[in-house]
Amino acid sequence: MIINPNWVSGFVDGEGTFYVGFNKQPEMVLGIQVLPEFRVVQHQRDIKLLHALKDFFKAGVVRRNHEDRYELRIRNLQHLQEIIIPFFDQYPLLTQKKFDFIKFKKIISILTAGKIDKEKILEMIEISSLMNRKNKVKTLQLKKEIMDKDMTLRP
Amino acid sequence: MIINPNWVSGFVDGEGTFYVGFNKQPEMVLGIQVLPEFRVVQHQRDIKLLHALKDFFKAGVVRRNHEDRYELRIRNLQHLQEIIIPFFDQYPLLTQKKFDFIKFKKIISILTAGKIDKEKILEMIEISSLMNRKNKVKTLQLKKEIMDKDMTLRP
Repeated sequence: MIINPNWVSGFVDGEGTFYVGFNKQPEMVLGIQVLPEFRVVQHQRDIKLLHALKDFFKAGVVRRNHEDRYELRIRNLQHLQEIIIPFFDQYPLLTQKKFDFIKFKKIISILTAGKIDKEKILEMIEISSLMNRKNKVKTLQLKKEIMDKDMTLRP
Repeated sequence: MIINPNWVSGFVDGEGTFYVGFNKQPEMVLGIQVLPEFRVVQHQRDIKLLHALKDFFKAGVVRRNHEDRYELRIRNLQHLQEIIIPFFDQYPLLTQKKFDFIKFKKIISILTAGKIDKEKILEMIEISSLMNRKNKVKTLQLKKEIMDKDMTLRP
């Protein structure tokens, strides 16, 4: 299947998601795992297309999302930084999803810029709370918990 | 807003719908009005993009769909035949929606090929029943009603 990059940009404008999860992981630095993820979800009838997109980006895995829906999911930070972000810089999104992408890009740049401290975690949660709209309550709660805790940096 | 045609194809693969409605209209030939429609629905935050797509195709109207959702809707048969169908022939869809497009195209070709008789109406209902999946029950019921009636051609 030959896929035009502008087609990919249009398709992702409709069907793609830039998401940043924050999982509590006591064993990790600051007790928080930051999980940026780019995904495209489709009904199983279009699973071949998800594999074609995986080949297109040379990144990610195709997995069941839920029930009869499958997703291409890219979580690898290097792939996000070196493949996904340059791609959407070159083939820009046109819907309001472009603002999710800008925030996602900012979070990736924080994650790849060096040591993560409490301030950076809070900044990423703050940025994430403005993404995807559904995310707001969850991230604000998490932010409160982190600010309430007297967190210290662990190496 | 500059829109690349391949972006449009990708976006429609995610967000577009090719739909054929059949309305009972006693005053019309055969008592059935066939209403093919191409539409793209978006949240109101992307209403500007719908207008940009309208300018891109030079066809259609932007209207409220329901609640906070708006649509670009193209119903004009000539526009469907001369703009929409050649466009997606040139910039093909890649999801299974392409099969909806093929059926839609077939219905447009029947509608524009000349006089519509009972047989053609039934053929269009049959084709439509295989589109969009949700349409099946409604169209089969309609088909039954038409076949039960002793319909005569009115000029």
